[in-house]
Amino acid sequence: MQKYEASSSVVRRLPRYYRLLKELEREGQRRTSSRELGERLGMTSSQIRQDLSCFGCFGQQGRGYTVTELREHLECIMGLPQKLPAILVGAGSLGKVVSENVRFEQRGFRLTGIFDIKPELIGKELAGLSILPMEQLETFCAEHQPAAAVLCLPKESAQAAAEQLVSLGVRGLWNFSHCDIAVKGAKVVTVHLDDSLMTLSYHLHNQ
Amino acid sequence: MQKYEASSSVVRRLPRYYRLLKELEREGQRRTSSRELGERLGMTSSQIRQDLSCFGCFGQQGRGYTVTELREHLECIMGLPQKLPAILVGAGSLGKVVSENVRFEQRGFRLTGIFDIKPELIGKELAGLSILPMEQLETFCAEHQPAAAVLCLPKESAQAAAEQLVSLGVRGLWNFSHCDIAVKGAKVVTVHLDDSLMTLSYHLHNQ
Repeated sequence: MQKYEASSSVVRRLPRYYRLLKELEREGQRRTSSRELGERLGMTSSQIRQDLSCFGCFGQQGRGYTVTELREHLECIMGLPQKLPAILVGAGSLGKVVSENVRFEQRGFRLTGIFDIKPELIGKELAGLSILPMEQLETFCAEHQPAAAVLCLPKESAQAAAEQLVSLGVRGLWNFSHCDIAVKGAKVVTVHLDDSLMTLSYHLHNQ
Repeated sequence: MQKYEASSSVVRRLPRYYRLLKELEREGQRRTSSRELGERLGMTSSQIRQDLSCFGCFGQQGRGYTVTELREHLECIMGLPQKLPAILVGAGSLGKVVSENVRFEQRGFRLTGIFDIKPELIGKELAGLSILPMEQLETFCAEHQPAAAVLCLPKESAQAAAEQLVSLGVRGLWNFSHCDIAVKGAKVVTVHLDDSLMTLSYHLHNQ
């Protein structure tokens, strides 16, 4: 598979392009332009063209992009059809909401294991999986080789868990632990819910 | 208070600047530059300067920005010290996690009411508040005038609830309902957890 190199800001915008293209498809639209994409996303058309060209999407002069082709191309770039195995660590209230609400299968992953430290949670079912004790993490990783782990832990235990997971072969962490984590050899994407709340605050004060 | 006009992309980057500045403060750093900010955020220094200049932050030629001043300025621009009253609608598992995990008071809001439609939830305590029935929404809004509402509803009921809230004076919606919502007269910020999961997928395929 071809690999792309793009700045983290460009990568962060990819899902927004993808969502908009799916919306255009639902609206029955066949073609689009960098101008239209820009207008709907509040960006300039040259920024759109520049971003998409990082991934070899150039459009046709004067004719723009074919919506479905571009959507499928972005889907492949993000590896969404691959469904990499992922585990979730921390099956408390946050882990429950994440495992039950996130559409992993449509977003490039399939959940293959859920782990917790609390004895009272072990064996309970979550998102169709039986919660496993942390003691089984090592054997499980050796056998199933999860590529990614979702961290739904208190921030005190997140860094240590992250290091353990990476030592067991996990290469990507989706971190809900309200703290920044860094582990050599792994990509960490942290969910900052607060960021979107702050933008709402901004809009209410600058309406 | 001064009002600013900036594109939605610039506004979306504000919380990231803000978080980075807080980190620099914790690290004991007094001054910073657009170059340093750019390096740490994976952006060009000219983009940083351009973004910040939208809010009247120009820095000093050759001396850059004072970390604390810039952080305080961004804080004011986002209205964080104001703590606007907000309510949460939908006290199921998602609403519970949001109300208990989000630091509203540090992000420009204070939670003043929580509502649900399910009789078995009414009167239960969540985030220090007693869950109220939807029938009391109108009287509550007339009395407390919430500026914003957090929507933790199934997507089928989100649009109708949003319209009702806006008719009762709510001006901003923080939408967790897995669907795009549009209501005239209100700003809607939708949380797309899936977006960050897709960027993780991207990184794992393009490492």
